Amino acid sequence: MIQKYSSALLEDAVNEFSKLPGIGRKTALRLVLHLLKRTIPEVETFGEVVVRLRNELKYCKLCHNVCDEDTCSICRDPSRDASVVCVVENIKEVMAIENTGQFKGLYHVLGGIISPMDGIGPNDLEIESLIDRAKTGAVKEIIFALSTTMEGDTTNFYIHRKLTGIDIKISVIARGVSIGDEIEYADEITLGRSILNRTPFNDSFRH
Amino acid sequence: MIQKYSSALLEDAVNEFSKLPGIGRKTALRLVLHLLKRTIPEVETFGEVVVRLRNELKYCKLCHNVCDEDTCSICRDPSRDASVVCVVENIKEVMAIENTGQFKGLYHVLGGIISPMDGIGPNDLEIESLIDRAKTGAVKEIIFALSTTMEGDTTNFYIHRKLTGIDIKISVIARGVSIGDEIEYADEITLGRSILNRTPFNDSFRH
Repeated sequence: MIQKYSSALLEDAVNEFSKLPGIGRKTALRLVLHLLKRTIPEVETFGEVVVRLRNELKYCKLCHNVCDEDTCSICRDPSRDASVVCVVENIKEVMAIENTGQFKGLYHVLGGIISPMDGIGPNDLEIESLIDRAKTGAVKEIIFALSTTMEGDTTNFYIHRKLTGIDIKISVIARGVSIGDEIEYADEITLGRSILNRTPFNDSFRH
Repeated sequence: MIQKYSSALLEDAVNEFSKLPGIGRKTALRLVLHLLKRTIPEVETFGEVVVRLRNELKYCKLCHNVCDEDTCSICRDPSRDASVVCVVENIKEVMAIENTGQFKGLYHVLGGIISPMDGIGPNDLEIESLIDRAKTGAVKEIIFALSTTMEGDTTNFYIHRKLTGIDIKISVIARGVSIGDEIEYADEITLGRSILNRTPFNDSFRH
């Protein structure tokens, strides 16, 4: 259904909001009407923050995490173990892993995963810079923490092959039944894998 | 859980987006990361459109619909019947009714409905201007098309009382079982009302 907007400005704003992922035209209109009810300084702040973000945000030269300086606070932290690098898809995964408090190494943010369907190939990702980091000899272990999907596995294998010949330990985060899940509701593939990849009893309860 | 953002700019942007209705911090982060992938001119357009919307959008002097000029295209349309005014809550309802193509009169946008819980009283709405329109004598009929909720009915009754003594026809949009609904699934109040307010057979199939 074609909505007839009574104002070109309103239509422009709805168009802009509906370009965002997961936001259709109805939601876009709701957000735009909400902004109209806010004060002018509030809306100006909103607009400025978005533009400043895009213009001024930097990416860490080492791990490609977002930051406000040349290197990120994680890479600059001397208490972290620079010999272990966790490879993730995006900064969302950095945040998720940081929230667990279980990882004290550094990260490497690929900026996506190999996905031919979306036109994303290895050259669109920070894979070369990861190989370069591995070649320096400072990194002893690389942990893959990518999505457990076809695309994630493709990326794992691609990078794994690129690392051939470099003396480095390569591991993948454990895949299995989620903690708190009931076995009867676990999917077959996960359950099957978690039996094949069973761990020694005492190791399973480490914190 | 407190998210630790690696960039203050990123955190500001997430904060701004999560002020929008129905957008939590996770969705806000997803939207912000999406904007980071767009080109700088695209993001600047986004920011500018939002600010221009708030600064330059006008409200029709007659019906309070949004527009780019002093009066809206509906009020300016000489083919429309200026003697019938449909009272609606917001511009979303104007669009919804316009999409039906069934109404050829003018509108009056209240800008909300009376809702003491949300601190919205009659003086926060465009009720006085509606009474003024009714007093001019140019309006022969006022149709209430407000939500069929407690707040909508309160607003109906409040305005109805304010119109006492003015020679004007007042009607409310029909309430009943939605077209396409099965009777057995209609709620009791709607079904009960639709029996009480039954219409002559031939009137029900007018287009």
